[in-house]
Amino acid sequence: MLSKEEISFLVKGFTHNDIPDYQMSAFLMACCFKPLNFQETLHLTHAMLHSGKTFDFSDIPFKKIDKHSTGGVGDKTSLILAPIVACYDVAVPMISGRGLGHTGGTVDKLESIPGFKMNLSFEEFQHHLKTLHFAMMGQTKDIAPADARMYALRDVTATVECIPLIAASIMSKKLAEGIDSLVLDVKFGCGAFMQKLKDAIELAKWLVKIGKSCGKKTIALVTDMNQPLGNKIGNSLEIEETIEVLKGQGPKDLIDLSLTLSGAMLTLGGISRSVKEGIALSQKVIRTGQALQKFKELIKQQGGDERVIESFSYLPSAKYTFEFLAPKAGFLTKINAWHIGKAASILGCGRETVTDVIDPSVGFILHKKVGAKVQKNDTLLTVCYNDEKKCAASMAELTQAFEIAPKKPHLTPLIQKILGKL
Amino acid sequence: MLSKEEISFLVKGFTHNDIPDYQMSAFLMACCFKPLNFQETLHLTHAMLHSGKTFDFSDIPFKKIDKHSTGGVGDKTSLILAPIVACYDVAVPMISGRGLGHTGGTVDKLESIPGFKMNLSFEEFQHHLKTLHFAMMGQTKDIAPADARMYALRDVTATVECIPLIAASIMSKKLAEGIDSLVLDVKFGCGAFMQKLKDAIELAKWLVKIGKSCGKKTIALVTDMNQPLGNKIGNSLEIEETIEVLKGQGPKDLIDLSLTLSGAMLTLGGISRSVKEGIALSQKVIRTGQALQKFKELIKQQGGDERVIESFSYLPSAKYTFEFLAPKAGFLTKINAWHIGKAASILGCGRETVTDVIDPSVGFILHKKVGAKVQKNDTLLTVCYNDEKKCAASMAELTQAFEIAPKKPHLTPLIQKILGKL
Repeated sequence: MLSKEEISFLVKGFTHNDIPDYQMSAFLMACCFKPLNFQETLHLTHAMLHSGKTFDFSDIPFKKIDKHSTGGVGDKTSLILAPIVACYDVAVPMISGRGLGHTGGTVDKLESIPGFKMNLSFEEFQHHLKTLHFAMMGQTKDIAPADARMYALRDVTATVECIPLIAASIMSKKLAEGIDSLVLDVKFGCGAFMQKLKDAIELAKWLVKIGKSCGKKTIALVTDMNQPLGNKIGNSLEIEETIEVLKGQGPKDLIDLSLTLSGAMLTLGGISRSVKEGIALSQKVIRTGQALQKFKELIKQQGGDERVIESFSYLPSAKYTFEFLAPKAGFLTKINAWHIGKAASILGCGRETVTDVIDPSVGFILHKKVGAKVQKNDTLLTVCYNDEKKCAASMAELTQAFEIAPKKPHLTPLIQKILGKL
Repeated sequence: MLSKEEISFLVKGFTHNDIPDYQMSAFLMACCFKPLNFQETLHLTHAMLHSGKTFDFSDIPFKKIDKHSTGGVGDKTSLILAPIVACYDVAVPMISGRGLGHTGGTVDKLESIPGFKMNLSFEEFQHHLKTLHFAMMGQTKDIAPADARMYALRDVTATVECIPLIAASIMSKKLAEGIDSLVLDVKFGCGAFMQKLKDAIELAKWLVKIGKSCGKKTIALVTDMNQPLGNKIGNSLEIEETIEVLKGQGPKDLIDLSLTLSGAMLTLGGISRSVKEGIALSQKVIRTGQALQKFKELIKQQGGDERVIESFSYLPSAKYTFEFLAPKAGFLTKINAWHIGKAASILGCGRETVTDVIDPSVGFILHKKVGAKVQKNDTLLTVCYNDEKKCAASMAELTQAFEIAPKKPHLTPLIQKILGKL
């Protein structure tokens, strides 16, 4: 059992370069084999959280609530729920990462809006929070710097997959944002970091317990990431779909998850008495156009071209399209999110390494989701591409992604579990 | 399961600074939790062995045999057996380490002989081997450099205690010496690296198996290191006791172990048909004075003052002595080698860190061993010291080292097991 002082000594020493990388990597590897217990993980979270700057928004007279997702293919819920929730008397200080892996992160998606600026100063961020009730910025080096450096070591020493380390990493960054409450979307399935439902539940439990121990109301949804979320995948395409949902359109799975998350946030913020009521309040601000207006104001405030709200022609779009057809008739039993994500990365939506440049305009549009009946040569997906070679290279992944069978598959709920007290 | 290529890539890359310390320390920590299997350990031994220079003594027309001990308090057997074995047609290319921990290593002991030079060139070492049949030198940076660097990392990342890593470390250095056969003394008990007999047996099995797989005849003795070996502890004091044994005197436990080891070496070298016969041949060269003469020649060849053979007054000696008395009558049931070693280190016999300077003249002379009947105020041990404060500081350890009880203790054999085929 490591004491609070020992863990703090390690993290502080590592952050200040007094403790070398080889010590930290040995510690991280030991953690993978003999996981930290809850108390140690809590100490680690605190130590990482206090390795850098922490925000204090106590002068903003609303509950500060954020949402974090462990990441998935086609997941643009943050972009949808933030303007919805911001229509009410809560504040959403959202600090997001760039994408590494299959698809872009929230930062990359927003940056596909011409002019949109993510690197806000603390003062700008605070100002937007006060005036708009929400603000979005990219992860900075000031926030939990120990986490960034520890993650870089974990990434190269095969020590990523360890629940206490994952939990401490997520929570240290989120707690540094000066929030009162947190809603987590912990994904499982082939397109998620956690492949198995039981591991996702386990991680969700740790996250909720850490949040609670730090005096923050925390709830976690455990959700299915076996097929992509929504129909559009790619940076500007996901901005399109965000706007569609805020206009009251868009695919059901994406609406359901986004509104359950916003409903939970409104409940934690004391605006609604239940998630159900929170969902109704969310639907209301979509119906009235307030949520869309909020999003438009965000774009304007952060220097983006607000005309994208009216016409997608102001968003970057790919030069060519290619229709990916069903090879046979039957029921769509699988759209493997991992293969779709890989194909998206090949196409240019994401980064394989930090130095890769993202193409904001490329991506996929799904025309069918799991459970749909398809005829031979029905369009399953449209590839939006600029580079023919990349399009061709993505085919190997796409052909592996779809499964068609004669029998209609059993459909499982998108939201499998909600953990934590509202 | 790691392949030969993977392990070789890691060790080679690490040796050439292409693979950073943090990767190696993560690997070493993983090895502690998920130990390498035998095949992997063999690959690791090979990779470490070939990380530097290997010796080739194929032009010396004798079997090249070495002995290695995992280290203990009062263990000067190498100094005794090497000149004994060298009286016959075998060659002993002995490369030893400096001591780190309680007492000095073989190198430190020999260096207590005024003028004795341990840093031989390869040519000098080879020349001594040809003319004297044995030579002693200190570990150099050329031999298995990967081991030195890996050990340094293990030392600071709590990854020392892992049998496959220990086995690869020992064998890589010994196999680099160009030997045909190897006799190992694997110690267990409170004064040894391995506390438990079963762990020492396990390590001995690994060592023998690696040696055999590399085409070297290897045998291992598993021996008791609960009380110090012999009666003298300290660098010049151990040279004294070495000379005493080579003169046919000295304590029984030290003679028994030294001659069993030399007997085993002579048997592996094809000189004797059994260890028993090897012991008899060893006794013979002590009786005739040949072994003592060999040791004298070694001292002369390596620049030392050979008059130490005739009179210990040529060896450095401590200024003061202090008699440590029995606090009560009874039987001596324990002389805790760990506490004696610690006391020796405090006195100046060993190093706590690599930069500590050893005092060659200080140490202890034991007057009683476990099982002896003692009267109150009998001298148990003489402290030979130069610095009164250090002498006083060593008392705390000495008082914990001795146990006296009314009943005669059950004595267990010094040599518990011999593993490997002769």
